[in-house]
Amino acid sequence: MGNDTAQTGHEEQTPVLKIAIIGFGNFGQFIANGIERQGHIVLATSRSDYSEYCERHGIQFFQSMDAMCEEQPDIVFVCSSILSTESVLRAVPLHKLKPDTIFADVLSVKQFPRNLFLEVLPAGFGVVCTHPMFGPESGKHGWKGLPFVYDKVRVSQNGPQAEKCAQFLNIFEQEGCRMVEMSCEEHDRHAAGSQFITHTIGRILSHLNLESTPINTKGYETLLQLTENTVSDSFDLYYGLFMYNVNATEQIENLDRAFETVKQKLFGRLHDILRKQIVERVPMQGIPIKAREPAASAYFLPPGEKITELSSFAMAPQGETRQSEVNLEPTVTRR
Amino acid sequence: MGNDTAQTGHEEQTPVLKIAIIGFGNFGQFIANGIERQGHIVLATSRSDYSEYCERHGIQFFQSMDAMCEEQPDIVFVCSSILSTESVLRAVPLHKLKPDTIFADVLSVKQFPRNLFLEVLPAGFGVVCTHPMFGPESGKHGWKGLPFVYDKVRVSQNGPQAEKCAQFLNIFEQEGCRMVEMSCEEHDRHAAGSQFITHTIGRILSHLNLESTPINTKGYETLLQLTENTVSDSFDLYYGLFMYNVNATEQIENLDRAFETVKQKLFGRLHDILRKQIVERVPMQGIPIKAREPAASAYFLPPGEKITELSSFAMAPQGETRQSEVNLEPTVTRR
Repeated sequence: MGNDTAQTGHEEQTPVLKIAIIGFGNFGQFIANGIERQGHIVLATSRSDYSEYCERHGIQFFQSMDAMCEEQPDIVFVCSSILSTESVLRAVPLHKLKPDTIFADVLSVKQFPRNLFLEVLPAGFGVVCTHPMFGPESGKHGWKGLPFVYDKVRVSQNGPQAEKCAQFLNIFEQEGCRMVEMSCEEHDRHAAGSQFITHTIGRILSHLNLESTPINTKGYETLLQLTENTVSDSFDLYYGLFMYNVNATEQIENLDRAFETVKQKLFGRLHDILRKQIVERVPMQGIPIKAREPAASAYFLPPGEKITELSSFAMAPQGETRQSEVNLEPTVTRR
Repeated sequence: MGNDTAQTGHEEQTPVLKIAIIGFGNFGQFIANGIERQGHIVLATSRSDYSEYCERHGIQFFQSMDAMCEEQPDIVFVCSSILSTESVLRAVPLHKLKPDTIFADVLSVKQFPRNLFLEVLPAGFGVVCTHPMFGPESGKHGWKGLPFVYDKVRVSQNGPQAEKCAQFLNIFEQEGCRMVEMSCEEHDRHAAGSQFITHTIGRILSHLNLESTPINTKGYETLLQLTENTVSDSFDLYYGLFMYNVNATEQIENLDRAFETVKQKLFGRLHDILRKQIVERVPMQGIPIKAREPAASAYFLPPGEKITELSSFAMAPQGETRQSEVNLEPTVTRR
């Protein structure tokens, strides 16, 4: 097939690659579109039967991994979920493939597939770990400017494997992706601090059942959008981001600490104000005399001393004594 | 001054209002611009001296509340912070004002100022509680389409007070605001579930010291933006949203529960997988025989049984036994 040439439309014609996608769900199909746009041959296999879809899209679908591997693809592109990738990889009949076959993945975590590939694949096989940081939703209007992270983990310096790897990566470059070469460690460190945190916030918000109000602020609109996008992804994906990224647990702990800090700042300040009145008996400015009697002060002890009851502070007037509750250090800065 | 007319540019000319702003910080100045654009007279007083700024902008600045009130404004527009509003209001020499003066506020909470105004102001005074849901940042390119919430708490049905109230609200309508008439209770209920939650998420994120990475997702970009916008507001504002909104504490509790739920889902699932291996001794598919020996199972007990240590799961291979850790129910759906 060295004589075949891809119809990429750009000057020098590159030989056609035979790319076998394992795991042909939403994402596998989505990525196949780009590969076909660049004039390469797509083979596909999956747990479910996508033969009809493939027929409509000029893709060869195989009911078994064996049948597909007998086609001796140049690239085996693993597009399965994080949770299934190991069992999927171990089911590939490696002996049926060419000795210089290149394996690539698209997982949102990178150290895990890199270690798995290096552990399972024969020495001659190439390993390219990639993370297209977009999907059917964000990439529906094309891939221009969307980040494509990759790490050439194990690819021969020159010769056919090196060329095929270059052609493979060129598919995404030609589609307009922002190509980001980065080690798998670096990717996972960055991803835990950004993508995982984002998913976590979205997951948290999804449990609040936020609703659109007649007075949405711009900031709130973005949270509603974030929640919508997050829940459109499977919990398996989110769980995978957590389970298979060594840095994720640390980020959960950081988020935990941050939330505690905010709560402490809020409730701590309430406590200080109350303590001043109740313990130190400091009269606040503007309090009418009778509010300074013990009875009045006692009123400020929240029911059952539950700090969470303190929002009763903003309730409708309970007579003069209420004034002192809202008489805090005046500062005419912003609302 | 009934003969003066405003240069609003639109057909019928409306009489000029004399609007006295108390609290001339960023927001007071920002709101004054719109009032002047609509051709009304702005008087201002504040704790700090803004006389130079006012001179440059054709605004009368008064060093004392007394001096300003002697000008007998039609509207007293309180633009102080939530925390200082009560002490500010109580310092106004009400006897110097016209008996039908209208008081308005701009706080991000509404039940509190409504109750305060009704408690402090003489019966003849008008009360209009407003919340312009924008500021110097979001409104720097004009107020078109930005929500302006208001509640005509106490305004005479007709006569000069009714007319002046209409003129006052017309300022924001003419500036293109989306006018939302809403009771103070309804506002606070909506605001706690939207604005307060948004500020809280922003505050939490600000403690994570998030940084831009080479692989930012769109969702992460919005979180970075949200954090930036949140910290540009004072903590006093955030504290005010919490302290003076009866619904805020409930929202903090909901957020707390939501975070716990997400953590439980993540760690709970890890626990289930471990328990299957350690307690029920269920061999996972694809585990080599030797991995099924007690020694191998024991390996899955996280150090010190700290659930947070479980991220060690995604570490580099520790030999064959590692496989079982990542052999979970295969599902070839998305990455």
